Amino acid sequence: MMITVLRLGHRFERDKRISTHICLTARAFGADEVVFDVRDERVEDSIKRITDEWGGNFKVNFTENYKDFIKNFDGVSVHLTMYGLQVNDIIREISDKVNERKNMLIIVGGQKVESDVYFLTDYNVAIGNQPHSEVAALAVFLDRFFNGKELVRKFNGKIEVIPKAQGKEVLKNHSDFSVLRFKDFSLSFRIFNEIFCILFVNSLLHCLLNKVLYETVFLSVFGEVF
Amino acid sequence: MMITVLRLGHRFERDKRISTHICLTARAFGADEVVFDVRDERVEDSIKRITDEWGGNFKVNFTENYKDFIKNFDGVSVHLTMYGLQVNDIIREISDKVNERKNMLIIVGGQKVESDVYFLTDYNVAIGNQPHSEVAALAVFLDRFFNGKELVRKFNGKIEVIPKAQGKEVLKNHSDFSVLRFKDFSLSFRIFNEIFCILFVNSLLHCLLNKVLYETVFLSVFGEVF
Repeated sequence: MMITVLRLGHRFERDKRISTHICLTARAFGADEVVFDVRDERVEDSIKRITDEWGGNFKVNFTENYKDFIKNFDGVSVHLTMYGLQVNDIIREISDKVNERKNMLIIVGGQKVESDVYFLTDYNVAIGNQPHSEVAALAVFLDRFFNGKELVRKFNGKIEVIPKAQGKEVLKNHSDFSVLRFKDFSLSFRIFNEIFCILFVNSLLHCLLNKVLYETVFLSVFGEVF
Repeated sequence: MMITVLRLGHRFERDKRISTHICLTARAFGADEVVFDVRDERVEDSIKRITDEWGGNFKVNFTENYKDFIKNFDGVSVHLTMYGLQVNDIIREISDKVNERKNMLIIVGGQKVESDVYFLTDYNVAIGNQPHSEVAALAVFLDRFFNGKELVRKFNGKIEVIPKAQGKEVLKNHSDFSVLRFKDFSLSFRIFNEIFCILFVNSLLHCLLNKVLYETVFLSVFGEVF
């Protein structure tokens, strides 16, 4: 199954942060990509940085013609709008349809979505019929769709959070030498940890070098003596 | 029960839109007020406009000392953070506690929340342990807390959306003379509707005037003739 979010009406001057929140929410709640109808490299870059660090295969893409994109989408298309049918009433039907057809396109817009969109999609779904936020709507829709299972999905990133009742704990996957745990609050502890790792790797390298020197130089010179 | 959202770390230059989304989400998902630690009248004004039109008693307030505000809060305090315990595991316990103690304080911050906050609150709760959005976190937390019932709550506003499979339909409560239904797409229909109402009220007033004239002038002059 592939879940695509189509973000309409991004305004370059005003929407960088909201669009970034939409992308991060899409990623964290189980979508595979966000497609924009306006290119904004600032958003693409900041999402790429997060994905590099926190893992997953999430992508940000771009379409020149969003109406064709909706029409040609192979799967179930769902437009999130406060004017649509209540999510409570329709989510089961949508889940069944997506299980049949495999892919889902979720369309989120700003305040001014063209009226065509309401008629191009399979479903118009409201996360409540009050004005609020496309970020909130996307999060709740995906949470309902996945029944909360999206929140425990593994991303296999360089960093991973260990859930804690108080404070912060992060698992840092140093792919180069080891797996470290450190408490984010304690800078001194973190520095100590890093120094320890450097010394540890350093010692390993020394051992290796000694072994090589011993086997090549020492044995070839004094080997026959002993 | 009273639900307060405390929004920390609002930056005047950057956060107007995100903070507005937080307020709208809080309102739409059943909270009673948002309290800021930084005053921003632009956010307050835009939320007031929405509440005037769409109904409810939602308020935006301000505290000078958010740590005292958390310490003195009479109820259960929940800090939403990606480092906290998974919402899936803890939401039932929180619901039970809030049912006992009546009030709930939900704390949402930006990227840099002071470490004290993690130890001042009763719960640190993660809506997934990936980085995403405080708007998304607040929406999903409230949706889980209310089990989706918040989405069908009535706000008794001047406007109300009629959920529709396609297009938009709005119920406009003209408190002055009548309740009108119009389709938002059709401007001509809306204008016709308004004119019809004006004519209707006009006719009513004419009838009333005629009745008064008949009873006072006509009857007093010609009453005895017939």
